[in-house]
Parts: sequence; C-alpha cells; structure tokens
Amino acid sequence: MNKQLILVKRPEGLPDASTWTLKTNPIPTISDGEFLVQQYYVSLDPAMRGWMNDSKSYIEPIAIGDVMRAGSIGKIIKSNHADFNIGDTVTGWGGVQQYAIGTEKTWYKVDTKLAPMPMYLGTLGMPGMTAYFGILEVGKIKAGDVVLVSAAAGAVGSIVGQIAKLKGCYVVGIAGGKDKCNYLKNELGFDATIDYKSENIFDAVKETCPKGIDVYFDNVGGEILEAALSRLRMHARVVICGAISQYNNLEEVKGPKNYMSLLVNRATMQGMIVMDYAPNYGKAAKDMGQWLMEGKLKSKEDIYEGIENFHKTFIRLFSGDKKGKLVLKVIE
Amino acid sequence: MNKQLILVKRPEGLPDASTWTLKTNPIPTISDGEFLVQQYYVSLDPAMRGWMNDSKSYIEPIAIGDVMRAGSIGKIIKSNHADFNIGDTVTGWGGVQQYAIGTEKTWYKVDTKLAPMPMYLGTLGMPGMTAYFGILEVGKIKAGDVVLVSAAAGAVGSIVGQIAKLKGCYVVGIAGGKDKCNYLKNELGFDATIDYKSENIFDAVKETCPKGIDVYFDNVGGEILEAALSRLRMHARVVICGAISQYNNLEEVKGPKNYMSLLVNRATMQGMIVMDYAPNYGKAAKDMGQWLMEGKLKSKEDIYEGIENFHKTFIRLFSGDKKGKLVLKVIE
Repeated sequence: MNKQLILVKRPEGLPDASTWTLKTNPIPTISDGEFLVQQYYVSLDPAMRGWMNDSKSYIEPIAIGDVMRAGSIGKIIKSNHADFNIGDTVTGWGGVQQYAIGTEKTWYKVDTKLAPMPMYLGTLGMPGMTAYFGILEVGKIKAGDVVLVSAAAGAVGSIVGQIAKLKGCYVVGIAGGKDKCNYLKNELGFDATIDYKSENIFDAVKETCPKGIDVYFDNVGGEILEAALSRLRMHARVVICGAISQYNNLEEVKGPKNYMSLLVNRATMQGMIVMDYAPNYGKAAKDMGQWLMEGKLKSKEDIYEGIENFHKTFIRLFSGDKKGKLVLKVIE
Repeated sequence: MNKQLILVKRPEGLPDASTWTLKTNPIPTISDGEFLVQQYYVSLDPAMRGWMNDSKSYIEPIAIGDVMRAGSIGKIIKSNHADFNIGDTVTGWGGVQQYAIGTEKTWYKVDTKLAPMPMYLGTLGMPGMTAYFGILEVGKIKAGDVVLVSAAAGAVGSIVGQIAKLKGCYVVGIAGGKDKCNYLKNELGFDATIDYKSENIFDAVKETCPKGIDVYFDNVGGEILEAALSRLRMHARVVICGAISQYNNLEEVKGPKNYMSLLVNRATMQGMIVMDYAPNYGKAAKDMGQWLMEGKLKSKEDIYEGIENFHKTFIRLFSGDKKGKLVLKVIE
C-alpha cells in the first residue's frame, strides 16, 4: 500500500497539522513509458509554503485533494521505459508519498556511488542549483566582493556562502543562534556571521560589512532585507531568492521601505527561479560534485523519519530548528 | 546686486516658504579660470527635495546657509577663462540666484540657435538625459515591449514615453488629470493613459496593459509602483528613477509590498542616477537634438517668473500643477 499526504485545506499563516491528511491507497499501476518509484526521501523546502496558496505564481497551486507536492528520490521497482530500469536511483517530483509514478520528463537518474541519496535533494538538487546560479549568474560575484547571505545555515544559503568563498569573496552569513553561527565560521569558513536572534541586524550588518555590501543574497525578506539595503555599495546586486520571514504572514507582506537605496547606489534587485537554469544543471552538478570531492564544499542534510511526521518536520523550516537541507525519510 | 535664495532650515514634509530666505548680496568677483554668469533660468526638479535632507545620498546635502542648489542657464558677462567668452550661453550648477561663478568643470556651452534656453534645462538637460539613459540603458527597451511610465507628463516621463514610441514600444502613461492624459495621447502619441487621480490604479494598469508590462519606468513610488509590480511580464525591467510620492512623507516611506513579483517574474529592479552617464551625454544630446528637429520628439517647458516666486513654483512639482519641465526665470 501507498501512504500519501493529501492537502485538504489552504492554510492561513503557519500551517497546522490539519492542513493535510494521511491516506493509504493501493500502489498505483504504470502505463507505457512510465516507471514506479519506491520513494526513500522527500525534500522539505520553504517554497512549498507558497505552492499551498491559491494565487498565481511561478507554478500552479497544489490542488486541494492532491498529494502534497515535493521533490523526492527513490529506486525504480517496476518499469515500462526502456532507459529506466529496476534498481535505478531516480530523483524527481514524487510528492509526499511512498510510491510515485515517474516519467522521463520530470525524473532523472543519479549515481549513489558518488553521493548519498539525501544529497541529491540538497547540494546536488534544487537548493544547490539555486545557490549556484543565484550567486554566480544573478549575483555576478567576483573576487574581493563583500557577500552577505541570509538563512546562511540553510540548504541554499550554506552553499551560496561556500561558493562565494571559493570565488575569493568576503562572506558574511546571517543565521539564528550561536550554534549555527559557529558552524558557519568554523566548519564552512565564513568570514563573519550575524546571529539575528540576539543581535540588532542593522548594527550587525554595519559592523560586519564596514565598507558595505556588493552582493546580498536574500532568502528571508522583511527587516533583514532592509538592513542589507541600508548598506549597499555602488552597483550592488541584490538576489531575491526567497522571503521566508513573510511566507506565513497573516498581515500584509512588508515591502523594503528603503528600496530607494537601489537608486542612490545604482544597484540592482533581481528575482530568480531555479527552473530557468535547467539547461545548465549538468555544468553546475559537475562543478559542485568536483568541489564536494575536493572537500572545498561541505554538504549537510538534516534527516527526519516517517511520513506521519511530515507536519512537525515541515514547520522546522520556519522555526529554524534544523541545520542544512531538511529531508524526510518516507520508506519504512 | 545678486538676489540669492538661501536654505535656512531643513523642511519636514512639504517645504513651506520659511524654508528659504531671499538675500541680496554684491555680485561676486571672479578668480583666474573662472567666469561670471548672469543667470536667466533655473531648473526646478523633484530631486531638489532630497538634497535638502540631512542624510547620506548620491550627493552631499545642501548646507544650511548655502544658496539653494539648482541647475541653471545664463550668459557669461565677465570671464577669466580663455575658452569661455563674454556673451557665451552656458549651463551648469548655478543655484537659485541671479549671478553665479562658473568654472569649466561644472559648466558647458550651449547653442541657443539650436534650441531656446529653457530646453537646455529640460529635454536637452538633466531630465532629458535621465529619460534617454534610463529607458535605453537601464530599461533596455526593444520594439514591441509594453512600457509603462509614471509622471508621464513631466520633464522626464514625457521624454521616456516618446523615446519608447520611437523605438516601437507600446506606451502607457500615468498622469494626474484629464488634461495631461489628453496631452499625452493627442500631442505626444502615447498609446494609452491612466489618470491616477480619477482611476483605480490597479484596475487601470490591468486594463491598459492586459498582457502585462515589460518595462516600468518609475518616477513616483508608492501605490503606483505596487500596481506596476502586480502586472510584470517575465524578465521585466523596473527602472527606479524617483519616488516623488514619498519625498515629503512624514511617516515612513512605503516599500513595495509585492516586490516578490520580481522573483515570480524573474524581473529586475534597478536604480539609476543620470550623472553616471556623463561621458555619453554628447551622444544622447545628438540623438535628442536630431529627433527634436525632425519633429519626432516634443519638448514642453512650463516657465514661471521671478526668483521671489521660487517657493510657490517649487511646490508645483509635488501638486502636479504644471506640464513638462518646470523652469523659473530669474533675470529681471
């Protein structure tokens, strides 16, 4: 049987457990060209919160009654596709369930000899690709740049900061709590950190970036975005990747009231969606794989177990009670 | 004698008449390399409001006790510079006064056979240069783009819209009142207009740009910026040139609460300051002059008289009670 997590209502604010229901259905049957994936891990990402809203965005909302959308990884256990064989490890959009039907359009094979499964949902998956293209293509970093990144201990932020270090930048990471800040400095090699839970963010940005910021990589929005805008250097680039501080807002989203800093500093604020870079994922994966093997890039996954624990794991994205890529093991 | 308008205090909100005082001082004497300009016209621009605040920006604040900073044009009546001769018409940063000392660093000669003096403060001056580089270099317009411009009947906006038309764009202008909207459509050839004083701006942007916006040129900020952000097309460009709706705010500036539209639409919001393009002013002036002579570009100046009328003329910038470039004649 196939345990599936079904979206049953649209949440207001932080989703509670009644947002989903767990159903047990027969394992689906596959048609020509399809294959059946036994899913091992599903990916938990802040963007999932946005997909639950009934509003136009870069992707269709998840319909009420549908399986909760999620990236996933697992092994093929049946196949009607010549190029996808039983035993292959594949990653794609399997959703929060134990068995998923795969097609060649939205799934691809990965090699678990090179990296463990969860890493393909993080550093070698969407978050890693987001970091790679966001900081290199949108942020256009060059050696010597001062790079500030928020949610710096997260799946995207931790890779952004490390890539910026690899490229010769001075990197400051913003994270919640001493532990995360120590991790960024001591394990990932960040130059400086800001603990937004205990420091005044405006003062701390000024102190850690006394000459200002060349690139700000924003995962959080809100006051931290304003603090970054207040310290831009000339021709700075602000990469808008997410706004997790605003995703569960019941009130209106807070727009950055000092956005005119873009004018004063001739700066650019640009939004990005990782899917746009799909044609170049191969190049990114090659670079990232190389850096991982050389020990220049560290990947951390925070793995929880049990599809029935989805809700309490999911809300760790917003409480910040996790380190690195949040992943849920759904195979029993 | 030289009548000079002196900044005597920093205004809060919309400046009242007591912000300045008119003083009469002797006409200054010139040193080596300098020349004396009898000023005919001074330029009144929204940016002047920002220069009066005591805060870090792209230019030093005007000091209390100094002559009010302004662009100006006039004729040389004395000269200690070999290349600047008595009778030459020159434009520069003369301030709100009747006589100014000029140097080759911040003044240049213009030809009044080609265009009347006030036009050199508008279409052939900073506002025109701002429009030219803003829409072409920052907005990166191409034929077929849908271009929305705010303060469209103003010195910058009217040129932005006309250049966009020249380049084959579909151009929608936002202005206050039927008269201005008629002027944009009937005299300047805009494709559609929005009267923000009588229409719901969100509905009107949707109606006039049913397929969305490729380039939004923002002179105003506030709700109109949000309305534009709500209708961006993929890879849209938002040019941040000004935020006149916010310059006299006593409360906090309103940031655009839907800035995440930049992410959804992979769009870019970029600030600009015209001075950065100074090395290319010559090329722009050549193009603009050509278009003016061919009748492809229309320039409108709204001229008031008397340095003692500075305050009541200046506030027309913010009430919108003017059409085209606002200029004050200061010669008596």
